[in-house]
Amino acid sequence: MARSSRNIEPIRSNREQVAGKGLLHRRTLLGRGVALVGALSVGVGLRAAAAEPLAEASWGQEPGDPVPAYQTPSKFAKNVVRSLSNPNFEPRTSQSRTPHQLLDGMITPNGVFFTIVHDGVPEIDPSKHELLIHGLVKQPLIFNYESMLRQPMTSRIAFIECGGNSAGLFSPQPLQTDVQGLHGLVSCAEWTGVMLSTLLEETGVDPKAKWFIAEGGDAAHVMRSVPLSKALDDAMIVLFQNGEPLMPGNGYPMRLLLPGYEGNMNIKYLRRIKLLSEPAFSYWEAQVYTEPLPNGKAYQFYFVNEVKSFITSPSPGRDLKEPGYYEISGLAYSGKGRITKVMISADGGQSWAEAALQEPVLSMAFTRFRMPWQWNGGPATLQSRAWDEDGNAQPTRAQFVAARGELPSEPPLLAFENHHFNAITSWAVDQKGHVTHAYA
Amino acid sequence: MARSSRNIEPIRSNREQVAGKGLLHRRTLLGRGVALVGALSVGVGLRAAAAEPLAEASWGQEPGDPVPAYQTPSKFAKNVVRSLSNPNFEPRTSQSRTPHQLLDGMITPNGVFFTIVHDGVPEIDPSKHELLIHGLVKQPLIFNYESMLRQPMTSRIAFIECGGNSAGLFSPQPLQTDVQGLHGLVSCAEWTGVMLSTLLEETGVDPKAKWFIAEGGDAAHVMRSVPLSKALDDAMIVLFQNGEPLMPGNGYPMRLLLPGYEGNMNIKYLRRIKLLSEPAFSYWEAQVYTEPLPNGKAYQFYFVNEVKSFITSPSPGRDLKEPGYYEISGLAYSGKGRITKVMISADGGQSWAEAALQEPVLSMAFTRFRMPWQWNGGPATLQSRAWDEDGNAQPTRAQFVAARGELPSEPPLLAFENHHFNAITSWAVDQKGHVTHAYA
Repeated sequence: MARSSRNIEPIRSNREQVAGKGLLHRRTLLGRGVALVGALSVGVGLRAAAAEPLAEASWGQEPGDPVPAYQTPSKFAKNVVRSLSNPNFEPRTSQSRTPHQLLDGMITPNGVFFTIVHDGVPEIDPSKHELLIHGLVKQPLIFNYESMLRQPMTSRIAFIECGGNSAGLFSPQPLQTDVQGLHGLVSCAEWTGVMLSTLLEETGVDPKAKWFIAEGGDAAHVMRSVPLSKALDDAMIVLFQNGEPLMPGNGYPMRLLLPGYEGNMNIKYLRRIKLLSEPAFSYWEAQVYTEPLPNGKAYQFYFVNEVKSFITSPSPGRDLKEPGYYEISGLAYSGKGRITKVMISADGGQSWAEAALQEPVLSMAFTRFRMPWQWNGGPATLQSRAWDEDGNAQPTRAQFVAARGELPSEPPLLAFENHHFNAITSWAVDQKGHVTHAYA
Repeated sequence: MARSSRNIEPIRSNREQVAGKGLLHRRTLLGRGVALVGALSVGVGLRAAAAEPLAEASWGQEPGDPVPAYQTPSKFAKNVVRSLSNPNFEPRTSQSRTPHQLLDGMITPNGVFFTIVHDGVPEIDPSKHELLIHGLVKQPLIFNYESMLRQPMTSRIAFIECGGNSAGLFSPQPLQTDVQGLHGLVSCAEWTGVMLSTLLEETGVDPKAKWFIAEGGDAAHVMRSVPLSKALDDAMIVLFQNGEPLMPGNGYPMRLLLPGYEGNMNIKYLRRIKLLSEPAFSYWEAQVYTEPLPNGKAYQFYFVNEVKSFITSPSPGRDLKEPGYYEISGLAYSGKGRITKVMISADGGQSWAEAALQEPVLSMAFTRFRMPWQWNGGPATLQSRAWDEDGNAQPTRAQFVAARGELPSEPPLLAFENHHFNAITSWAVDQKGHVTHAYA
């Protein structure tokens, strides 16, 4: 194909800068019509072109591959996968993290939804799996998979976040890893299943019941105590994840969903719900998922994932190639309802501009935010800060550390016991466009 | 585990029948609280239970499997896959159909999103793929994958439906196959990409331009003509499908999305957009995707997928095991906007009741509907009928055939040239609970 080498006009004029270091008004993005704004041409990989015929690549000249019954990503997208904390499968907890820096949108596809298992991924035969509901009920009942499929179903799009997500930011020095390494233990899917309240209508509830325990059927037998009020509100026994049966790493054949509550309480491989008059203080809640505070007390029985956001692009590993137009994009979410606002700073918090929120904005689901940015080639520090409909604002890291503490000593460790970090994340951009994790 | 054999009360009383053959009011389902309605106990697979300890299955006693970087479904869900029209990969079109009868929710997971390819699935290296925009533009431009990733992005949840979906219902006798076989050429995902209007701001548009052609880069080189108004409205160049890069069968590395327009126009492996003053009358639109009408004229350049719905459960292959409570569930969608209402009949259209619509109800996306049903063990004929915000109602099959014709002769064929079938589908339930496809 013939191509001219004339320069493309890289930037047109009618864009309004609304905060420091080149942040542009969000109307430059969503919902704009052609007549409203000028072009946002980018230079890299964009060239003036001339006439036909088009050159033919090899894939335009020969037949492709057969269509499989279950399709998986292109071999050219082989880096868009989860990172594994235990690749040799030693006898300990295995984490796998979602590559948010390589994704876009609000849905996390099932292939890369994050997983934490404490004793491997079980292969459960659904025809032999049962769910027992007992304790302070009027009639204990056992539901098998087939009977669950006959119940009234509900769907909702919701995130699940490990309480230990973002734990690396407790380190006194910024860990040099990517979004996946820092924030990869949260994902968002459409879940379909049976409201727990529906099953409790069938068993009846003893008025003395105030809590329930949920227990998994895999070898780890994770067990957590949950206030009964959550069961009567929005707790769901999930059978489907983004339309298809649950992934093995995410609880197949059935799991508990407690929208907005930390991940480990959303018990996978669910085999038992027992209603109690008080919490059970299981090993998992007394020893593992409890957080010591600077004042010597414990941050225990605090379930809700606090309002949080982070920028996925630009981010470490996605350097800027040249000055010009970029979209700053990321994810915001809160366990207390809808995201109401996300503000972006390119100068480390000195000035802020409001990001566009991608519809639909749903309660306790990922909200994708977008902000147009003209990078002038100088150093910049990118931050996002989210608010939720419950009135909560994401704290700065300084505010957070004052209240919750940080790890005391070098070398920094990814401390599994440090939970519920939700402060602002900062990405430093240097004059070469290299992006690193920073505290600002 | 000790289990009692006492009978479980299968049905409680306070449910209101609102149409023939046991259809119940939809408030029995969504958003109900425990105090509002009685239980909906089902008998199959539900048993009274007694005390601890729980029996241990093998997966509760031994470690599970390693966590993979990209997870796929359980081996016990191996039937939840696409059906293949060309399993031996002969040199012709290959269709794969989504197993809607085994899914629930509104999102189609990427693994089983339907695919049609006319010359196999190409393996395209995104670093060597380019998109040319030329013709009646002020400055022809070439965008590579990297430059596309830098553009402003938008996400939307939208269905794509092949114009030939449901073609089997043109047959004069009801084909005995399942939802997948009849309606499997439609799926719904969250798509993220660049508005075509954004790219046309950069190239500029010659006022003489009224149409554009879009062409794929695979060996089939499918090319279709599209009114320019669609490009300036909601056409998108998609890079991400349910969050991750497009599946190879769905257009990796980039495809056109024309929300609400028949699938083949949503050109996959997109390599070219050319602006023209009139349509190109390509082979694909003049020969393949044109529909003859009973009056001798052609149903050509009709792009929009009409309002449609179908019941996914109960459905052929998902027989009823015993009289009692069931949820009737299915999918509704329209290329002309939001679904406003879905009505359900259990008596072949003599009486109707309004289904509950699962939120969020989005324009040109799947809407999951649900209806509580008490099957009394007698014969029943299940139907769904949808309305959209543009005022369109799904026709009966008799109305549809009067306007559009049916295949004239036996044996019935799945006629690829019969397009845009959107009439009501009927499932007949016999006294044994066996479900078959019927015309009613």
